[in-house]
Amino acid sequence: MDGRQCYDLLVIGGGSGGLACAKEAAQLGKKVAVVDYVEPSPRGTRWGLGGTCVNVGCIPKKLMHQAALLGGMIRDAPHYGWGVAQAPHSWATLADAVQNHVKSLNWGHRVQLQDRKVKYFNVKASFVDTHTVCGVSKGGEETLLSAEHIVIATGGRPRYPTHIEGALEYGITSDDLFWLKESPGKTLVVGASYVALECAGLLTGLGLDTTVMIRSVPLRAFDQQMASLVTEHMAGHGTRILRGCAPEKVEKLPGQQLRVTWVDLTSDRKDAGTFDTVLWAIGRVPETASLNLEKAGVHTNPVTGKILVDAQEATSVPHIYAIGDVAEGRPELTPTAIMAGRLLAQRLSGRTSDLMDYSSVPTTVFTPLEYGCVGLSEEAAVARHGEEHVEVYHAFYKPLEFTVPQRDASQCYIKMVCLREPHSWCWACTSAQHGEVIQGFALGIKCGASYQQLMRTVGIHPTCAEEVAKLRISKRSGLDPTVTGC
Amino acid sequence: MDGRQCYDLLVIGGGSGGLACAKEAAQLGKKVAVVDYVEPSPRGTRWGLGGTCVNVGCIPKKLMHQAALLGGMIRDAPHYGWGVAQAPHSWATLADAVQNHVKSLNWGHRVQLQDRKVKYFNVKASFVDTHTVCGVSKGGEETLLSAEHIVIATGGRPRYPTHIEGALEYGITSDDLFWLKESPGKTLVVGASYVALECAGLLTGLGLDTTVMIRSVPLRAFDQQMASLVTEHMAGHGTRILRGCAPEKVEKLPGQQLRVTWVDLTSDRKDAGTFDTVLWAIGRVPETASLNLEKAGVHTNPVTGKILVDAQEATSVPHIYAIGDVAEGRPELTPTAIMAGRLLAQRLSGRTSDLMDYSSVPTTVFTPLEYGCVGLSEEAAVARHGEEHVEVYHAFYKPLEFTVPQRDASQCYIKMVCLREPHSWCWACTSAQHGEVIQGFALGIKCGASYQQLMRTVGIHPTCAEEVAKLRISKRSGLDPTVTGC
Repeated sequence: MDGRQCYDLLVIGGGSGGLACAKEAAQLGKKVAVVDYVEPSPRGTRWGLGGTCVNVGCIPKKLMHQAALLGGMIRDAPHYGWGVAQAPHSWATLADAVQNHVKSLNWGHRVQLQDRKVKYFNVKASFVDTHTVCGVSKGGEETLLSAEHIVIATGGRPRYPTHIEGALEYGITSDDLFWLKESPGKTLVVGASYVALECAGLLTGLGLDTTVMIRSVPLRAFDQQMASLVTEHMAGHGTRILRGCAPEKVEKLPGQQLRVTWVDLTSDRKDAGTFDTVLWAIGRVPETASLNLEKAGVHTNPVTGKILVDAQEATSVPHIYAIGDVAEGRPELTPTAIMAGRLLAQRLSGRTSDLMDYSSVPTTVFTPLEYGCVGLSEEAAVARHGEEHVEVYHAFYKPLEFTVPQRDASQCYIKMVCLREPHSWCWACTSAQHGEVIQGFALGIKCGASYQQLMRTVGIHPTCAEEVAKLRISKRSGLDPTVTGC
Repeated sequence: MDGRQCYDLLVIGGGSGGLACAKEAAQLGKKVAVVDYVEPSPRGTRWGLGGTCVNVGCIPKKLMHQAALLGGMIRDAPHYGWGVAQAPHSWATLADAVQNHVKSLNWGHRVQLQDRKVKYFNVKASFVDTHTVCGVSKGGEETLLSAEHIVIATGGRPRYPTHIEGALEYGITSDDLFWLKESPGKTLVVGASYVALECAGLLTGLGLDTTVMIRSVPLRAFDQQMASLVTEHMAGHGTRILRGCAPEKVEKLPGQQLRVTWVDLTSDRKDAGTFDTVLWAIGRVPETASLNLEKAGVHTNPVTGKILVDAQEATSVPHIYAIGDVAEGRPELTPTAIMAGRLLAQRLSGRTSDLMDYSSVPTTVFTPLEYGCVGLSEEAAVARHGEEHVEVYHAFYKPLEFTVPQRDASQCYIKMVCLREPHSWCWACTSAQHGEVIQGFALGIKCGASYQQLMRTVGIHPTCAEEVAKLRISKRSGLDPTVTGC
């Protein structure tokens, strides 16, 4: 075909994984193109280059989480001697600041691609054959792009429920929340995912009347004791949590408010409530619909819709790869997508044969009480190794900063799941506070840290992190795990 | 002698190390006594059980540091949408809250000793012979205490300058600062130690006009590049720093203010200023003066005055031990004293033969920009291994939380000092932010983490800690270490 452009590497999707892969490959001398296109959300929200993390994920979420935490700090401040009184929160001011920062990141990504001579196309891509993609611009203009290697990194988008009347017409998702110009007001968040809890937590922290509706188990993939502490803490700090309930209908009332009808699954009784906003956070779907994967022969898992990949990140077509959220079985996390993308680029350039190690990936749920973890949950460890081989060390502790304002520390809890003698490798560590704490421990676990080595690590006083190095009480002992004194 | 009480273990000093040692030994079945006596400071400040950390160190310092940080948060808050205006800070409110918390810890320590059947004497101890100590109570009553093993854990006290007129009469130290009922007002902090910088930093953060006078090198024992960033940050946030100056005289003016005269050591010119408070933070002296060490034959270093110890923590008298700040060559840190005390008790009880490992002890300086480190400084690494064998990876980064309020991040910097190939062990890591971050990395270093293992550790996004796992730029490369984008 005429006008076809040829590259060593074509990356479909300008999110965390795609951009990292493209930039690394370009730096290693490859001729690289990135195609990216943001399909507006059903509510019409659109954004720039950078993918979910930058635009509608980690970045705006963490900034709004920080805003919510500041609300707590302002309440603490008078106890610490500051003469401040809490005033209402302005969503518009926060949203404007967050959106400006995101836009600066969009711009930064454009500049970085340019600097590294990566060609960028703002087009919607679909496969024409195994080496060729057709990109269609907003104006309908078509570009044909061919490449020796193609990387699919299109990520995912929030799922809407399919059988609930009014869900699509009146509901929003996390794709919209961070771009709202005006406060969402009284909000119903539907879902049990970390996205649901994070959104509900930050909305509550910003002073909004917030309800989370959970059908079954919150944070299902995480340690369930820790998940309980996270939701208990939220409930204790003003988030209304409706358990075992499923929405049935969303209707618009004359005054613009939304009336939601739901069913209590245990009693089978119906109930209803009125909200300003309904936010669906019931999971995400991989973004493959418009890719024409069958034209290239790329296989997906029919249940999840995700692209099947091997340890090389290769799909069923050896020169077509998939990384990040769109790939089957991968953690849906920015840093894993980035590292996988960068390693893939290095392998494609012959710089290494190293594969991405998806084990022991640390992560933090940025609920009002942050929950960080790395490695296996307690239940997963017991299931894999048997209860008799697992030792769990734990502690309830009070962060020093909580003392002066007399904050409740009931949910400040650390546990570490270890394999018992003779090896005693510690391989999981969860902390009901501080996203910052867990990162270094992830390095320790990467290095095969044993419980004994942890006990020989001197603490930094006074910090929350030192409590991890002081975990002496095992669950098996039945002793009180409450840390007292200094 | 009559009335003599006999113990398996007698601990002199009820601070972090002494209490940990006493409690551990009692738990292992030993008959234990602790003697503790707080000599009032020259200004008359006195406090309860728990030693420096609890009463006049880590705990009140960190709480006042937190109060100062909250001041910054309140300034951030309007950018995040909160309608707050900063009001003046009430020292009295803060001091009252801090002092109440400290008193609750004093009480907690008393209870813990009782629970563990450790006998506590509030007496001033001095050796009578190698197995006997005479304790004198506040009222002058004497008690004779004998023990098979004796542990000296009396710590240290702030040093006053000896040749400066008015220093003792009009100056205070960190022994007094946290117990002041009223604001210290405009304060001159003299010294270059971490105590000096921490005190000056928190006073500045609480809104007080604060000057630090430094004779030569701030944070001398620390990495000097990091030390510069810490002082630069302080200078940029309102602390006045007078370098190369030495005080000569303190006089009281009629209106209760203090007039300090100093000399600029480079120009030899004199200058003077008026302050409400002068705080000496020029170092600490070991607390041995009243112990009558010569009666027991315990040797000290004539220069430092500290008690000479071996790897078993034994002094020149085999059954007398010294731990914590009073022992020669030990880091002056609560967690090392605690761990050393606990291990000593275990060895005395025959539970282990393990020695305390004083290498790679992590620590954090709680200046307004927190500075955490573990392992060797860059200069120490170069001195020990030669510049050609050392690789330093580094990054200037902007914490996400800084973006919205447009905080200056010029001093947010991480570096990691590694040994080059073939071994490439990373053994030092410094971070110009967050005391919480460094703890886990200390575990990694304990486990012999290599630079390669760090690079394979997945980050937690978005955190400051993940920047450590992304340190790709070496100083040797000359490339720009500024982190851009996401």
